[in-house]
Amino acid sequence: MVRGKWLYFEDLTPGRRMTSGACRISEPEIIAFARAFDPQPFHVDPVAARQSFFGQHVSSGWHTAALTMRLMVEALPVAGGLVGAGVKNIRWLRPVRPGQALRAQMEIVSARISTSRAGTGIVEIGVTTLNDKDETVQVMEVSLIVPLADNV
Amino acid sequence: MVRGKWLYFEDLTPGRRMTSGACRISEPEIIAFARAFDPQPFHVDPVAARQSFFGQHVSSGWHTAALTMRLMVEALPVAGGLVGAGVKNIRWLRPVRPGQALRAQMEIVSARISTSRAGTGIVEIGVTTLNDKDETVQVMEVSLIVPLADNV
Repeated sequence: MVRGKWLYFEDLTPGRRMTSGACRISEPEIIAFARAFDPQPFHVDPVAARQSFFGQHVSSGWHTAALTMRLMVEALPVAGGLVGAGVKNIRWLRPVRPGQALRAQMEIVSARISTSRAGTGIVEIGVTTLNDKDETVQVMEVSLIVPLADNV
Repeated sequence: MVRGKWLYFEDLTPGRRMTSGACRISEPEIIAFARAFDPQPFHVDPVAARQSFFGQHVSSGWHTAALTMRLMVEALPVAGGLVGAGVKNIRWLRPVRPGQALRAQMEIVSARISTSRAGTGIVEIGVTTLNDKDETVQVMEVSLIVPLADNV
């Protein structure tokens, strides 16, 4: 981008795709996150998890979502930061297991100038989170508030 | 409930409301979560946050969502645990600030027997997260996979 290292509204055109780096999720991390935010046997206790709905120890879906956010922050250097307006349709399609590496594929779905906040646009991004077997574990659509370059 | 301490599909009838306990969010927690999952100046750096979009230090929306999940786990003793099928429409309506106490109000929106997974139903819950001034900071709709009591 000629504007330097930051991305602006004008750069995020529908159809544009981006891929993040990878991030591995460990068993202690899964347990620590779940103790703080989702304290259920299938997330906090690898042994009890075998008797659960999942039949195995899996991450909290919210942990998967939060890690996906980190991958997005690293991959999308939007000017002023990633400011979320909202998220639509998070679906957890496959459990995430200890030791898996996750990465995110992003595609710009739509982009419109904001009518309520001058100098910004709303960019909707389809985000697919994959494990290291290229299986989709989560999909969601994130809407970001992105500054216009014109405004700078 | 006559079935003891656990909630089943039959207990989660549309219109039923529940309220969680409260949970306070501290500045160190906001910074630790953001360093791990949403490393942006307005979440990790209380001073730099003043120059940001938000003009103040605020939690990651994903932190607010994850804390809301914990409040739901504590308030909704569903048999077998809270197994999320997906989330529709998370909206962050107001920033969450260090020191605020959050609580969640839940209302059953719909409930239907699953056609694909015998012995379970899909229950959709509208979840409103409030701060200690009774201001709504987040709304979302969560779909859970809930076992039928009939099946037990």
